[in-house]
Amino acid sequence: MTAEPEPVEEQINGETAVANGADDADVVTPWTVKTSSATGIDYDKLIAKFGCRKLESDLITRLEALIEKPAHPMLRRGLFFAHRDLARILDLAEKKKPFFLYTGRGPSSGSLHLGHLIPFMFTKWLQDAFDVPLIVQITDDEKFLWRDIPLDKLGEIANGNIKDIISVGFDPRKTFIFKNTEYMCPAFYNNILKVWKVVTINQARAIFGFVGEDSMGKSAFPAIEAAPCFATSFPHIFGNKKNIPCLIPCAIDQDPYFRMTRDAAPRLKYEKPALIYSTFLPALQGAQSKMAGSDQNSCIFLNDTPNQIKNKINKYAFSGGQATTEEHRRLGGNCDVDSSFQFLRFFEEDDDKLAEIRQRYESGDMLSGELKKEAITIVQRVIGDLQARRKTVTDADVVEFARVKPLDFTF
Amino acid sequence: MTAEPEPVEEQINGETAVANGADDADVVTPWTVKTSSATGIDYDKLIAKFGCRKLESDLITRLEALIEKPAHPMLRRGLFFAHRDLARILDLAEKKKPFFLYTGRGPSSGSLHLGHLIPFMFTKWLQDAFDVPLIVQITDDEKFLWRDIPLDKLGEIANGNIKDIISVGFDPRKTFIFKNTEYMCPAFYNNILKVWKVVTINQARAIFGFVGEDSMGKSAFPAIEAAPCFATSFPHIFGNKKNIPCLIPCAIDQDPYFRMTRDAAPRLKYEKPALIYSTFLPALQGAQSKMAGSDQNSCIFLNDTPNQIKNKINKYAFSGGQATTEEHRRLGGNCDVDSSFQFLRFFEEDDDKLAEIRQRYESGDMLSGELKKEAITIVQRVIGDLQARRKTVTDADVVEFARVKPLDFTF
Repeated sequence: MTAEPEPVEEQINGETAVANGADDADVVTPWTVKTSSATGIDYDKLIAKFGCRKLESDLITRLEALIEKPAHPMLRRGLFFAHRDLARILDLAEKKKPFFLYTGRGPSSGSLHLGHLIPFMFTKWLQDAFDVPLIVQITDDEKFLWRDIPLDKLGEIANGNIKDIISVGFDPRKTFIFKNTEYMCPAFYNNILKVWKVVTINQARAIFGFVGEDSMGKSAFPAIEAAPCFATSFPHIFGNKKNIPCLIPCAIDQDPYFRMTRDAAPRLKYEKPALIYSTFLPALQGAQSKMAGSDQNSCIFLNDTPNQIKNKINKYAFSGGQATTEEHRRLGGNCDVDSSFQFLRFFEEDDDKLAEIRQRYESGDMLSGELKKEAITIVQRVIGDLQARRKTVTDADVVEFARVKPLDFTF
Repeated sequence: MTAEPEPVEEQINGETAVANGADDADVVTPWTVKTSSATGIDYDKLIAKFGCRKLESDLITRLEALIEKPAHPMLRRGLFFAHRDLARILDLAEKKKPFFLYTGRGPSSGSLHLGHLIPFMFTKWLQDAFDVPLIVQITDDEKFLWRDIPLDKLGEIANGNIKDIISVGFDPRKTFIFKNTEYMCPAFYNNILKVWKVVTINQARAIFGFVGEDSMGKSAFPAIEAAPCFATSFPHIFGNKKNIPCLIPCAIDQDPYFRMTRDAAPRLKYEKPALIYSTFLPALQGAQSKMAGSDQNSCIFLNDTPNQIKNKINKYAFSGGQATTEEHRRLGGNCDVDSSFQFLRFFEEDDDKLAEIRQRYESGDMLSGELKKEAITIVQRVIGDLQARRKTVTDADVVEFARVKPLDFTF
């Protein structure tokens, strides 16, 4: 792991670059997310520090008009809460001009957990709404550089993760899922080179907080996450089209990579990537940290059984309820710090039901045990649906998604 | 260009690492070679500083016994003067165990010059003597990162350079010549990753003198020159054999790359590369600098006409002769600072003739004009032979040498 970086602020060609997160209490980097606040990261401060924009309701309204259906619940509820240049993507979509989606995953544990699922569920919804190609980068190289896992072992982990991602419901005719160590090729490398050339060692250090004891590979890696922002990295999909921009749905801790990429893009005569950022799914233990595979007890994994899900939520899910039933009836619970309620915000699609649960919990009418039961039901359903699809996903599917072939789009 | 590095000494896992050259007066890095001494770099000091070994006559004798013919003149005359682990390669050859040759070229000017020719002429001789595969890396990516030349323009320059290299007489059934931007592939990238992981930013800075204002790409590049030392970068040639070591003939300014590689190799469970290092061909103006394409007047290019060669040597070649004919007859000339004599040392194969020229010039019997005439004749012959072969080299040959295919060797 990277040593915890010193907070550094630097202006690079117009995009605000910050190594650390919202303030001294909040740390948000691609490697660490933590806060001392029970309600979690202060996302408004983070927006101001990172220099991205709050996703205001006018943009959501515009998006709904464009796709002629309601926005995804995670959008309506502000769980995807910030963006860069989303309006430009909507402009393109209104003019029926092409764009593509790009997101990714660093394979670090045997099974994805609920937190990993957020960007993929939302990306699937975006892809269906706009009918555009999706690129999914599996950064097995990053995990090799940051962790002590051999490349072949990472290959197995990555394949399992890819199966989990496929289970979200993607279509190999519209989606390219590749591991960096398997896709690496001249088109991809040439864009890596172009990014490498225009970002200095000092800039990378300011953005990512690298220190001299870090490996050369860590300092080289950011360009490898940047390169898929450019359509020319995928000639099998985009032919010789140079300026098809991408929209990246991801958690906001990835912003440093894309701030860097957005600074580099104009110098490479490429379109800047647009971004839409999610908040973090809280750990079972509460919003001071995100759900993280490195802490098994903080997570619900996609391969947990219904019983495991029930037990984990009952045992670990931080409660916003009062100490005694009597007190709870009198004072009501606090949804904003309650992990079970936060899970419902992410996964319960019915707005009315969610509002009702909030009202009942905050009024003291609903007890913590009942709220947990609601969360258990919905999490079991989400994971159950995924597991049912996961059973049908084969090694051949992993190969097919990674096959270097045209997708069902012409440009 | 990289800012001129501060001299730094550091011990990394046993190989002595030095950013700069022999002493304060001598600068030897992959990017700069200069000295204030008229007799050129002090190579004995450089050996001590870099921590490589002098190539002593016992090794040459052993090599001659092994190949059953005399050593190449450049070996006999100490122009290939230093090595790392050459004895280990001779051990393997004696046991009929495999090794391969690896060398490279950074494409930076339209035509190679005489200085570039040295490692390739010597490599060709080694390849013929041992009948082993040869890998030639064309670092178009390096030149892209260090110079302001677009990738497509570098592609053209590289193709011209590859034709020059092919003209030395290589056989595409035994030799793989590839551009990094065209060969980049998973096998190659995986070795780059492995090197990246075990070298820190601090170590790279100490070895190469990188500064914060340098691009990320510069600090990433050394692993890309290191990776071809490992047979697993070329599965089409070596199959799944992991530990076929390489011998690298090159000029000693490339030592920093291979010191780094030799430190990394055991941690990757790979064989260390062995090296055989040449001195620098002096510039026409004398041995204070090497022949360098960036200074047109310092060079004789492989596409110079016989007349251009004659005029350049007559006009620019630094003379070790005396100011007047009378003085020269009385005092004699100084071969050690005379560029024409140095060219003869590299290219005149007849030892007796070379000794006679030295004797006659130093005794004052031969005048500078006569010495220049000898140099002109031999350089015209070397370049004339090359140009005759160059005429027959086609674009298809460049493609054939770069084709990812097995070579005529089994392992």
